[in-house]
Amino acid sequence: MSSNSPLVTLADVRAAHARIRACVHRTPVLTCGRLDEATGARLFFKCENFQKVGAFKARGAHNLILGLGDTEAARGVVTHSSGNHAAAVALAARRRGVPATIVMPRNAPRVKQAAVAGYGATIVPCEPTLAAREAAAAEIIARTGATLVHPYDDDRIIAGQGTAALELLEDAPDLELLLTPVGGGGLLSGSAVTAKALRPGLRVIGTEPAAADDAAQSFRAGRRLAGPPPQTIADGLRVSLGERNFAHIIRHVDDIVTVSEAGIVLAMRLVWESMKIIIEPSSAVPVAALLENRLPAGGRRVGVILTGGNVDLDALPWSGR
Amino acid sequence: MSSNSPLVTLADVRAAHARIRACVHRTPVLTCGRLDEATGARLFFKCENFQKVGAFKARGAHNLILGLGDTEAARGVVTHSSGNHAAAVALAARRRGVPATIVMPRNAPRVKQAAVAGYGATIVPCEPTLAAREAAAAEIIARTGATLVHPYDDDRIIAGQGTAALELLEDAPDLELLLTPVGGGGLLSGSAVTAKALRPGLRVIGTEPAAADDAAQSFRAGRRLAGPPPQTIADGLRVSLGERNFAHIIRHVDDIVTVSEAGIVLAMRLVWESMKIIIEPSSAVPVAALLENRLPAGGRRVGVILTGGNVDLDALPWSGR
Repeated sequence: MSSNSPLVTLADVRAAHARIRACVHRTPVLTCGRLDEATGARLFFKCENFQKVGAFKARGAHNLILGLGDTEAARGVVTHSSGNHAAAVALAARRRGVPATIVMPRNAPRVKQAAVAGYGATIVPCEPTLAAREAAAAEIIARTGATLVHPYDDDRIIAGQGTAALELLEDAPDLELLLTPVGGGGLLSGSAVTAKALRPGLRVIGTEPAAADDAAQSFRAGRRLAGPPPQTIADGLRVSLGERNFAHIIRHVDDIVTVSEAGIVLAMRLVWESMKIIIEPSSAVPVAALLENRLPAGGRRVGVILTGGNVDLDALPWSGR
Repeated sequence: MSSNSPLVTLADVRAAHARIRACVHRTPVLTCGRLDEATGARLFFKCENFQKVGAFKARGAHNLILGLGDTEAARGVVTHSSGNHAAAVALAARRRGVPATIVMPRNAPRVKQAAVAGYGATIVPCEPTLAAREAAAAEIIARTGATLVHPYDDDRIIAGQGTAALELLEDAPDLELLLTPVGGGGLLSGSAVTAKALRPGLRVIGTEPAAADDAAQSFRAGRRLAGPPPQTIADGLRVSLGERNFAHIIRHVDDIVTVSEAGIVLAMRLVWESMKIIIEPSSAVPVAALLENRLPAGGRRVGVILTGGNVDLDALPWSGR
């Protein structure tokens, strides 16, 4: 699919929603007086940390895998990931009843390997480099004819991730701003497609760690730039912006702002303490943008997608380890 | 009030609910497939960790303070506590517009002192002994005529705490078991009054750390026994069963079971990881009772009141400190 293909539309997002809604949670939208006070805005949190597999990634993976033709599906699916997308693919494949193979670096946390194995997927270990992961996945595809489920650079993934914003705008229709983190750009591009179609006046803003700011740089340059390898505490965002994602973002997104690493940790902890919910560092990035005053949100109604809640409770970012 | 006074009734709980409902959150009832699998039961969690001040204590304190006559209220309220009850009294007094004085041990965590001060209450520091706390409170009452807001041994507190079970049974009407932790017994006695009046066949079971099992011992003996000073990780339960609480419990509660300290930590962590919500150790006690198989819950519909979510994120029980 080239970058000149037609963009994903609201109709695609609605079709994705119809396809996946019986398989994923309709997550709640929570509010918090203390965070409203701290930011000066009126915040509406879409809690994808409560989603299946603990992250919004369940949406895109289900949309792609449930949408495959029977013959294609029967050959199985494959992905390379050590994170939430791996669990999402494993779960969606089990739901579809087709084999899933997950290429995972040998050093992936045991708890993540166990989660993927628990959904019945086959784990293929590889060296912890992107080249090794891609090579292993390509080999499996060549051998089995399995379908690659890319974590973000695919229109079916973009449409699936857009369903979180669709639900959020049903529950909080009069938002003025919508914030999501941006890593590969699956969530931001799907959210922007959805929000701009439903409410053209709503501003959609991506939020990114300054230490992994290739999306912000690309957005400003108007072309996709490869930054240095992203080194951020927000482990879900240690990837580079996808080609299809960039095409949607440059068309629909209003701005991308960056935040400090310290601000991410502070925001994460404040959400834990104020809302009594567990979010992972990536989820804290838009909250950090509000706390660091990186965008004009004062007095506005702001939607924030909390992307996931998978953290290693033995290595919290404020524990000094 | 002697132990021969009439017990709190469902009508008292309903009156409490009418009095406080505009001031406290109607907390959600959550379910979790992973915890259902782990326990073999069907669990309905009443999430008082999302309550104002982060704990069910907001209910009883508001009921007592909002129910005072104007003259009485104007003289202020006082309590001695270093925990959730202190914050609850401070918040309810601010709502009523009357002065609150909280006697707190000098070594109370700074964050708890800050929370109480943030609600506008006056903190009176004292030595960290029960005798010193009671003496300081008595002195304030003698001097000002303030009303003591006991953390549990008071019918108005019992009725207020019962409103959590009232809401839970509205949202999950066909429960077969209801579990709460028991420390002083305010929540357990209020819950039992409510549950038995609404559904006589529902079994109400208190859950207690084995390391602080004076309620279980008293229940079995049929009279209130003072155990050794409770030393449990469940900091909310380091108190002894109250007189009025015992009177209600012996009448309405079906059993009290105990759990290990290791079981509490395990259950707390499992709730964090599975539900992505933050609960404090006391909240994990009923979950531990299910995981340790201390009561026949298999296949049953079980209500669990998650009592609070205030934890020191710098000293988590699994961090080995």
